[in-house]
Amino acid sequence: MKLASLKHGRDGRLVIVSRDLTRATDAFPVVSTLQGALDQWSQVAPRLGDLAEQLEHGSVPSFRFHEHDCASPLPRAYQWADGSAYVNHVALVRQARGAEMPSSFWTDPLMYQGGSDTFIPPRDPIVLPDEAHGIDFEGEVAVVTDDVPMGVDPVAALDHIRLVMIVNDVSLRNLIAPELAKSFGFFQSKPSTAFSPVAVTPDELGDAWRGGKLHLPLHAYLNGEPFGRPEAGVDMTFDFGTLIAHAAKTRALSAGTIIGSGTVSNRDPDGGPGRPIAEGGLGYACIAEMRTVETLRGGAPRTPFMRFGDAVRLEMKDERGHSIFGAIDQIVRKHHA
Amino acid sequence: MKLASLKHGRDGRLVIVSRDLTRATDAFPVVSTLQGALDQWSQVAPRLGDLAEQLEHGSVPSFRFHEHDCASPLPRAYQWADGSAYVNHVALVRQARGAEMPSSFWTDPLMYQGGSDTFIPPRDPIVLPDEAHGIDFEGEVAVVTDDVPMGVDPVAALDHIRLVMIVNDVSLRNLIAPELAKSFGFFQSKPSTAFSPVAVTPDELGDAWRGGKLHLPLHAYLNGEPFGRPEAGVDMTFDFGTLIAHAAKTRALSAGTIIGSGTVSNRDPDGGPGRPIAEGGLGYACIAEMRTVETLRGGAPRTPFMRFGDAVRLEMKDERGHSIFGAIDQIVRKHHA
Repeated sequence: MKLASLKHGRDGRLVIVSRDLTRATDAFPVVSTLQGALDQWSQVAPRLGDLAEQLEHGSVPSFRFHEHDCASPLPRAYQWADGSAYVNHVALVRQARGAEMPSSFWTDPLMYQGGSDTFIPPRDPIVLPDEAHGIDFEGEVAVVTDDVPMGVDPVAALDHIRLVMIVNDVSLRNLIAPELAKSFGFFQSKPSTAFSPVAVTPDELGDAWRGGKLHLPLHAYLNGEPFGRPEAGVDMTFDFGTLIAHAAKTRALSAGTIIGSGTVSNRDPDGGPGRPIAEGGLGYACIAEMRTVETLRGGAPRTPFMRFGDAVRLEMKDERGHSIFGAIDQIVRKHHA
Repeated sequence: MKLASLKHGRDGRLVIVSRDLTRATDAFPVVSTLQGALDQWSQVAPRLGDLAEQLEHGSVPSFRFHEHDCASPLPRAYQWADGSAYVNHVALVRQARGAEMPSSFWTDPLMYQGGSDTFIPPRDPIVLPDEAHGIDFEGEVAVVTDDVPMGVDPVAALDHIRLVMIVNDVSLRNLIAPELAKSFGFFQSKPSTAFSPVAVTPDELGDAWRGGKLHLPLHAYLNGEPFGRPEAGVDMTFDFGTLIAHAAKTRALSAGTIIGSGTVSNRDPDGGPGRPIAEGGLGYACIAEMRTVETLRGGAPRTPFMRFGDAVRLEMKDERGHSIFGAIDQIVRKHHA
């Protein structure tokens, strides 16, 4: 089943989307918002599933689906907790700034609490006050859970995953170092996040969803040029079950909790940092990694962070080349008070 | 106007509470939940205010108000961002563990993104897995905002404050140091938070609400004994307008955002750390400060963190000794999976 929230009020208007993302039908006869569906998932999911089947067969009224009509599937959420499961990403970025990485990072997940009150629609501009903040995108995979009890174990946690999405975890790189130095975590350095137009149930992913990971490449484009296609199923040190269990160690998680993977990042087959697309590598799902590799090789970064007017696109396709979640496609714009 | 959410479903049942906290009337004719009210505050607040006046005059049907029937005013919220505005608290705790505090902490607010999906009702137990985590309470003041634009200035930010509450920001002290060392901020060390039974509009606070601060003592009791009564209006380095502006620097804040003050903490009149209640001081709004003072004086803490069965009470009273927000009154219990 594929779900989307068309822009409407604060919480969107829930629709069921056809597998090929061309048509949609209103979920309203069952439930009007995605948060409402997650609040009572076991009751409504079978009925939404019936509608999805009828949509595929053309036996319910439907309308043309346009990704640019979408809000993030949860336009606002009660929790957005983002892991950093591709430890390679963390190791690389630290290496570039000469900071040591504790070995515990390979066994104890990193996770930060993100702001969840104002997500950006996936085709809307990213509006920010200052290019000097070092505007970057981060391509990630995320899952949405139902109610998760405190102390859940990583295996049982997998059964609480209801939906899968992709993410642009917009980051302000030049605010990160001073903010982390204060030791209270990210705040101003993580402005509003965007999620893919469509959220899908894990069964839609077939064999690509296994072991709590999504085994497909995440395609990132910067100003229309391929920038990365790292494999989300590779080098993911912590699977989503482990990330959920980490989040639920000392408190329960409420239905509609979003758990992110962190920036998808692969090592090179030779064990070193991945190579850029231009050199036949898999590239990167954020600019910071490109800059890190440039720094490690040449002593300084060459690729600038995003300027106003720059565009980023994130998308994931199935084995037949069809978009699964629709595309996040955003231009950075200056905020005017 | 005083508002509360009686326990009911996921978002509670909004009621208007009399000034003396003895009676309540349903807000249902206007709006059914507090989040719903905040989503359209300018439309509904006047009508809720009318009901509040009628409640005071006995001209609407009402029922007895019991604080133990309450959920947190927002049982779940889209954002809980907690500042650390009483820099004295930070300085003290760091001093005890021999850690330096950057001087920027006096000019640039500390703030962390808290989990907002599962708040604890103010009279429900605090259920946690392990005493060894170092269970502590933190008495704070918090405000609830309406929609705040990105880049708001500290003065304009004050006009976005719709409600004021008190908070028990439950903390797991022994998880904080290792978690902050990972530099991604608090997560497991900050389990679910509890808010006072009643949230009040700033005008209810009269002259005690001025300059973006609440000028009243916050009373904390541990197992029935007075533990602290620090003045919330004193030693608050950053007022709520400054905290809101900090949160909104790179993104807009959505209606229902909760901004916390951090643990209320006063210096001694002689400039040193505050003295315990037993010595005629104002005491502390968390156990960690007591332990810090004990460490500074005697080389080691003597007061233990909370054990299962221990109770904490937080309350604030007006000049005539009447409870403003009702009391947070909670027992710590062991979580059984």
